[in-house]
Amino acid sequence: ADFKINLPKVYQAIEEADFFAIDGEFSGISDGPSVTALTSGFDTPEERYQKLKKHSMDFLLFQFGLCAFKYDHANSKHVTKSFNFYVFPKPFSRSSPDVKFVCQSSSIDFLASQGFDFNKVFCSGIPYLNQEEERQLREQFDEKRSQANGAGALTKCPVTIPEDQKKFIDQVIEKIEGFLQREEKRTLELNPCTGFQRKLIYQTLSWKYPKGIHVETLETDKKERHIVISKVDEEERKRREQEKYAKEQEELNDAVGFSRVIHAIANSGKLVVGHNMLLDVMHTIHQFYCPLPVDLNEFKEMTTCVFPRLLDTKLMASTQPFKDIINNTSLAELEKRLKETPFDPPKVESAEGFPSYDTASEQLHEAGYDAYITGLCFISMANYLGSLLSPPKTCVSARSKLIEPFFNKLFLMRVMDIPYLNLEGPDLQPKRDHVLHVTFPKEWKTSDLYQLFSAFGNIQISWIDDTSAFVSLSQPEQVQIAVNTSKYAESYRIQTYAEYVGKKQESKQVKRKWTEDSWKEVDRKRPHVPGPCYHTNRHTRREHQIPFITDGCEPPCGCWQLNSGPLEEQSAL
Amino acid sequence: ADFKINLPKVYQAIEEADFFAIDGEFSGISDGPSVTALTSGFDTPEERYQKLKKHSMDFLLFQFGLCAFKYDHANSKHVTKSFNFYVFPKPFSRSSPDVKFVCQSSSIDFLASQGFDFNKVFCSGIPYLNQEEERQLREQFDEKRSQANGAGALTKCPVTIPEDQKKFIDQVIEKIEGFLQREEKRTLELNPCTGFQRKLIYQTLSWKYPKGIHVETLETDKKERHIVISKVDEEERKRREQEKYAKEQEELNDAVGFSRVIHAIANSGKLVVGHNMLLDVMHTIHQFYCPLPVDLNEFKEMTTCVFPRLLDTKLMASTQPFKDIINNTSLAELEKRLKETPFDPPKVESAEGFPSYDTASEQLHEAGYDAYITGLCFISMANYLGSLLSPPKTCVSARSKLIEPFFNKLFLMRVMDIPYLNLEGPDLQPKRDHVLHVTFPKEWKTSDLYQLFSAFGNIQISWIDDTSAFVSLSQPEQVQIAVNTSKYAESYRIQTYAEYVGKKQESKQVKRKWTEDSWKEVDRKRPHVPGPCYHTNRHTRREHQIPFITDGCEPPCGCWQLNSGPLEEQSAL
Repeated sequence: ADFKINLPKVYQAIEEADFFAIDGEFSGISDGPSVTALTSGFDTPEERYQKLKKHSMDFLLFQFGLCAFKYDHANSKHVTKSFNFYVFPKPFSRSSPDVKFVCQSSSIDFLASQGFDFNKVFCSGIPYLNQEEERQLREQFDEKRSQANGAGALTKCPVTIPEDQKKFIDQVIEKIEGFLQREEKRTLELNPCTGFQRKLIYQTLSWKYPKGIHVETLETDKKERHIVISKVDEEERKRREQEKYAKEQEELNDAVGFSRVIHAIANSGKLVVGHNMLLDVMHTIHQFYCPLPVDLNEFKEMTTCVFPRLLDTKLMASTQPFKDIINNTSLAELEKRLKETPFDPPKVESAEGFPSYDTASEQLHEAGYDAYITGLCFISMANYLGSLLSPPKTCVSARSKLIEPFFNKLFLMRVMDIPYLNLEGPDLQPKRDHVLHVTFPKEWKTSDLYQLFSAFGNIQISWIDDTSAFVSLSQPEQVQIAVNTSKYAESYRIQTYAEYVGKKQESKQVKRKWTEDSWKEVDRKRPHVPGPCYHTNRHTRREHQIPFITDGCEPPCGCWQLNSGPLEEQSAL
Repeated sequence: ADFKINLPKVYQAIEEADFFAIDGEFSGISDGPSVTALTSGFDTPEERYQKLKKHSMDFLLFQFGLCAFKYDHANSKHVTKSFNFYVFPKPFSRSSPDVKFVCQSSSIDFLASQGFDFNKVFCSGIPYLNQEEERQLREQFDEKRSQANGAGALTKCPVTIPEDQKKFIDQVIEKIEGFLQREEKRTLELNPCTGFQRKLIYQTLSWKYPKGIHVETLETDKKERHIVISKVDEEERKRREQEKYAKEQEELNDAVGFSRVIHAIANSGKLVVGHNMLLDVMHTIHQFYCPLPVDLNEFKEMTTCVFPRLLDTKLMASTQPFKDIINNTSLAELEKRLKETPFDPPKVESAEGFPSYDTASEQLHEAGYDAYITGLCFISMANYLGSLLSPPKTCVSARSKLIEPFFNKLFLMRVMDIPYLNLEGPDLQPKRDHVLHVTFPKEWKTSDLYQLFSAFGNIQISWIDDTSAFVSLSQPEQVQIAVNTSKYAESYRIQTYAEYVGKKQESKQVKRKWTEDSWKEVDRKRPHVPGPCYHTNRHTRREHQIPFITDGCEPPCGCWQLNSGPLEEQSAL
C-alpha cells in the first residue's frame, strides 16, 4: 500500500533525473561449492555468463536501491532522490506462480550482520511479475471479462449442453425463471458447482437473458465458487462492468508492482550507473523481464534493449586514466579515495523529504545507500575526466562524450585478462599462450601445483574444479618445455591453453551445431566497437604475483587518448 | 547466547518429561509445480517418500516447537514446558558448510500473514550441524591440536623438507635461534606464509624444540595467517593447551547448537507426538542427523533408531474408535472437537516461567503453540480410550498399552486407501482393482475426464501429472468394460492399475536389480506387525464423492478390539 502511494513520487524522480544509480541485494551469490571455484581467472565471457546464469539466478534480488540524480544548474549541485525497495514475489492469487528461490546462509548471515530487516522483505515486500506473467494475468482477466460479457459469437446461438449436464442446467434455468417472477428479490445465489458447470451457466444465461441480469462468480467462506445473479437495468449493468474493469486494472497494476519501476527506468533511456553491476543487471532482467536467454549474444541484445546505456563504476575505476591513481576499486574504498586529490567530491544534496545519507557513517550494504555512493563515485570520476580537458570542464554531464567509452561495458570479476563484458559487440579475445591447462588427482592442493612448477619461477594458479586448473607461466616460451617434460607423467596431465580450447570446441560443435550457426549470424550483424584500453593493474599484479605480460595493446597504448581530437560536450541522444 | 544460557532448562525439561509434542515450520512445502500434482491419491508409501524426499528436503525447517508434558500426580494435572526454537545454519567458520536452502513464496507469505518473525530466524537463529558435519569439525580440531602438539610419531624424526623450501625453513630456524638467545623477548612473530610452509614449520619445530616453546597460528587484520612463537615453561605450556582445548570444546558445542536438543530428545527414548508429522520427522532427521537414505526401508530403520516411539495425532484421530466421532482432523478443528463430549479436556498448566498458551486465542502456526495443542489432543484421545475400559481409567499415561497400536505409524496425506506409513514393518498393500490409469493430451482438464467416464456413474479422479491420472470407478466390474471400450481410442489410453504397476516394475527392475534384492533382504528380516484397522472415513467420502468399496477389512472389523482380552496398564519399557 505504501508502494502504491509513493509510486507517483518514484515516477517523478525518474522523469526528471539526469541519470540513475542502482544496486541490488540478493539472497545469495552462488550455489556452487564456492565462489572461487566457480569463477576461474581464465573464464571466457561466454563461460562466465553461463556460470552466473546457472549458479546465481535461483537467488532472489530482494532489495533494490535506486538513486536518481538531477543537476541543479542554478545552485551548481546534484540533487538526489534515493529509494530502497524491498521486493518479494508474493503470490497474487491461487493461480499465480508460486516462486521458489534459494537462500545462501553466508549471504543471509552477512546481511543480518549489517542490520538488514528481513521482515520488510518477507512480510511487506513489493510484489512483481515478469513480462510473461503479466501477459498471462492480463489474458486471464480478458477471458473472464469476455466470458461474463457473453463470450461474443459463441452465445449468439443456444449452447450445446452435454447430456449429463442437461438436468442440472434445466434446474438452474427454472430457478432463475422463478427469481425473475418475484419482483421483491434483487439477487439469487446458486449452489457451488464445478468450473465446467459455471461455464455452461454463463453461456446459457448470456444467450437466454442477454439483458436485464448481471451474473458474477463469488467465493464462499469455504473458498467454494458459486454464481450470484442480480437484476439490473442496462445502465446499471454497464456501470457495474466498468467498475469491475477498473478494479481489475488496479489489481493487475498491483500485481505487476515493482516491475513498473524497472519499466519506467528502462523506458526513460537514461544512463544507469552501477558498481560491479553484471549480477545486478542479470537479476533485474531475469526477475522483472524474462528468464535469461541461453546464449550470451542474446543476453547482450536483450540488455541493450532494456537498458540502452549502462556504466559500471568498478570498470571505470580500473581503466585509464583512473587505474594508475586508484588502488582499490571496492565501493567503500573507491568512495574514500575519490574524496582526495586529484579528485573533487561533488556538491550533493538530497531532495526535500528524501533520506539524506552521511557518507562518513558508512551505512554500506543498504541498497539505496550503495546506489547513492555509486552515483557519487561516477560524478567524481566524470568530473575528473573534465578536469583533464583544456580548458578544464568542471562539471561533466551524464550525456557527455567523455564518458561514452565506458558505456555498456560491465566489469568481469576476477578474470585476469578480460576486464569487461562488452554489451555492444564481440568480447576481447586475449592470447593465452603463456597459460597451461593441468589435470591432476583430486587430492592435490595449491601447494602441490607450486611444487610441480617450482622450476618455472613465478606462476599463477587459477582453479577450474577439484581436478584441474589453469597455470600461467611468466614466459610463453616455458609453455612448451612444461608440456614436453610432462609427457610421461602418470598422475597429472599438462596441455596448452590452445589445445584445451580446441578440444572443448570440438565436443561442443557436435552438440550444438545449429546454435553455433545462428551465433555467427548475430556476430556478423554487429559492428566491431573497440573498447577502452585496459592495462594490467600493476597493484593487483604485485598482490597476486601475476608475472605474465598482457597481450593486445602495449602500454602506453593511447587508446584512451584525451588529446586525439576535438572533444566537446555533445548530447548522445 | 540466549540459547546457551537456556540449554540447561531445556535439558531439564527433557529429563523430567513423560512425553513430548513437536512441530516444525518450514520455508516451503514442495518445490514441484503444485502440491496436489505431487501427491497422487494412489501413491504407494515408497512413491510418497521419494516425492517428499526429492521435492521437500531443500526447504529449511526454521522453527522447531517443543512442548514437554509431565504429569503431576499430586494435583492430577499435566505441567507443560513449551519452547520455540528459531534455527538457522549460520556458517561457523570459513571452512564450514555454506548451506543453501529454498524458500517457497506461498509458504513464506502464509507465515508472514501469521505474524512470523523472520528476523528471529535469519539474524538470531540457533546454528546446528548434522552428525557428519560435527564429526568433521571434531576431526579438524583434533588435527589442529595434534599438529600443535607435535603431530606424534611424524616428528620424532627430522622432517623431509622439499628442495625449494629448504632456504625458507633455514631462515625461519635462524630467526628462532636468535629469538631464543635474547632473554628479554617473550614472543616472535613470523611473516605470513602458505599453509604448506606453516605445516613444515610446525613439524620442524616440534622435532627440534619439543619443549620450551609454544607455537600457534594467528590471523592478521588482513586475514593473513602467520605463526607466533612464545617462550613457555612446561607448566605454562600445558595450561595454555588445556585452555585452548576447553575453548575448542565450547566452540564445537556452539556449532552443534540446536542439534544437541534433538539428540537429547532422541536419547531420552520417550514418546514423541506430532500432528501429521511425516514431514517434520523427515526434516528433523535430514537437518540434524544426516541426508535421508535413498530407500524407504532404510529411512524406517533410521527413524525408529532415532525416535523409538512416535505417535501421529492426525492418524490417531482418523482411526477407530475416533474417526466415527471426529469429522475434521485438521489440528485447529481437532482441538476444538476434543473439548466437547464424549471427550474431556485435560487439566493442563504451564510450568513456572514458561509461556502459558490460551487455546481460546488460537495463536496457531507458532511451532511451540502447535506442539502444545498437539500434546493436548493426544492426552484427550488417550484418556478417551481409558474411558472405554471397564472399569474406566481416567488418566492414560504415555506408556500405556492402550496407545501402543498407534505407535510408529505416520499419517499419509491424501492417499486414499493407505492411511499411514508403517515405520515398524512393511506397508499395507490395498487391492486397487477398481482403479484405472488414464493417459491423455495435456490440454485435458478434470471436466474432460468426467465427460469421458460419464457413463460409469460416480468416479474419483487423482491426477498424476499433466497427461495422466488415476480414475477409480465405483465397481471393480466396470474396469474391464472401460478398458475394452477404449481399445481403439486415439487421443487417450486406459489401462488397469495392475497393468500400470506391472509395466512400471518392469522398467525399474532393469534399472536397479541389486537394490531390489537388498530390499527383499530387509523385508524378510522384519516381523509382520498388523496395524490398527482403518475404515474409510465416510465423511470424507461424501465430500469427495469416492464411491468405491474399500478392500481388506470390512467394517465393523474389530481389529481394534477393546474387549478382546484383558487390558491393563503396563509399562512399555
